[in-house]
Amino acid sequence: MKKNGSLEHLAEALRRLPGIGPKSAQRMAYHLLQHDREAASGLGHALLNAVDRIHHCASCNTFTEIDICETCQDAERDDSMLCVVETPSDQMMIEQTLTFKGMYFVLMGRLSPLDGIGPKDIYLEKLIARATNGIVKEVVLATNFTNEGEATAHYISETLKARGLKVSRLARGVPVGGELEYVDAGTIARAMLDRRTT
Amino acid sequence: MKKNGSLEHLAEALRRLPGIGPKSAQRMAYHLLQHDREAASGLGHALLNAVDRIHHCASCNTFTEIDICETCQDAERDDSMLCVVETPSDQMMIEQTLTFKGMYFVLMGRLSPLDGIGPKDIYLEKLIARATNGIVKEVVLATNFTNEGEATAHYISETLKARGLKVSRLARGVPVGGELEYVDAGTIARAMLDRRTT
Repeated sequence: MKKNGSLEHLAEALRRLPGIGPKSAQRMAYHLLQHDREAASGLGHALLNAVDRIHHCASCNTFTEIDICETCQDAERDDSMLCVVETPSDQMMIEQTLTFKGMYFVLMGRLSPLDGIGPKDIYLEKLIARATNGIVKEVVLATNFTNEGEATAHYISETLKARGLKVSRLARGVPVGGELEYVDAGTIARAMLDRRTT
Repeated sequence: MKKNGSLEHLAEALRRLPGIGPKSAQRMAYHLLQHDREAASGLGHALLNAVDRIHHCASCNTFTEIDICETCQDAERDDSMLCVVETPSDQMMIEQTLTFKGMYFVLMGRLSPLDGIGPKDIYLEKLIARATNGIVKEVVLATNFTNEGEATAHYISETLKARGLKVSRLARGVPVGGELEYVDAGTIARAMLDRRTT
């Protein structure tokens, strides 16, 4: 007979948050119950509400509450360009630069065979269908420049080029404001190979 | 018109967890929605359930779902001894030592004037009423040996001694397994003052 089922249950549920261990989970549970019950109910409702309402955009695959997200519905955007990103945060970063006015496709992850994440988990079929709709002319790969992001970009690039699409990748090089002394050799090598005539 | 209200709302709600900043909150929200919706609903229900059911034990002040918690109801325990701790975790640590079979009182915090935590926030009135019930003979103060815990112990000690109760404090000294070379001078000084004849 467990008298404190709700409390233990709450600590166990908090442990399933990414990066939260058993000690932190218990501390969070005590904190919420002792000092911020309002936040606890707020979070409870927010979670149930989000799970209930949020799904993937039928077009770009990002999280949305409507069928086709706001960005995809924007008639001002250039629908011959399609930028492929790993996450909605990456999309937001690109939007902030104001250098891209085309459409997006959000993979919601990157290929990572070691973690069992294959083409199906990054919605490759959906991306192929989206990119080969006859309107898209160029696909810009903007996955991260990590090993996994590069492998994902390579895989998508081969797949889409085989279907006759033009595929490009964000430029690699020395970051703006970067001092050569402090930039790693791999980046400088890349910048040398990709040098541009001015 | 916000199309993604539920998602932003979820990230804001997660930020109110202790130790979680805006970036972590967003990453958690994406993770839950993409990879673990079951955990998200589970946590949502656990939070609402805990807020609804959990309150303070009428006797020892710990978190419980019933009026008087299991420990306080245990007839085998010695109700002439009352051990005062800061949190339910501290109580659990003491229970694990199997050296105390009396009752507990959980302050749910410690005095901390800088953070605006005064006697009312550590349920001092409730502790006084509990300790002066005529049955309790000795109060063992087991607050932490931090500055705040020591100040809390001192304050409670003065308050209860003025009411004629015997008040004791956990012994300070060199930890079991401790090597003098690596123990701080304050602890050794304390151990020297509190030395015991063998």
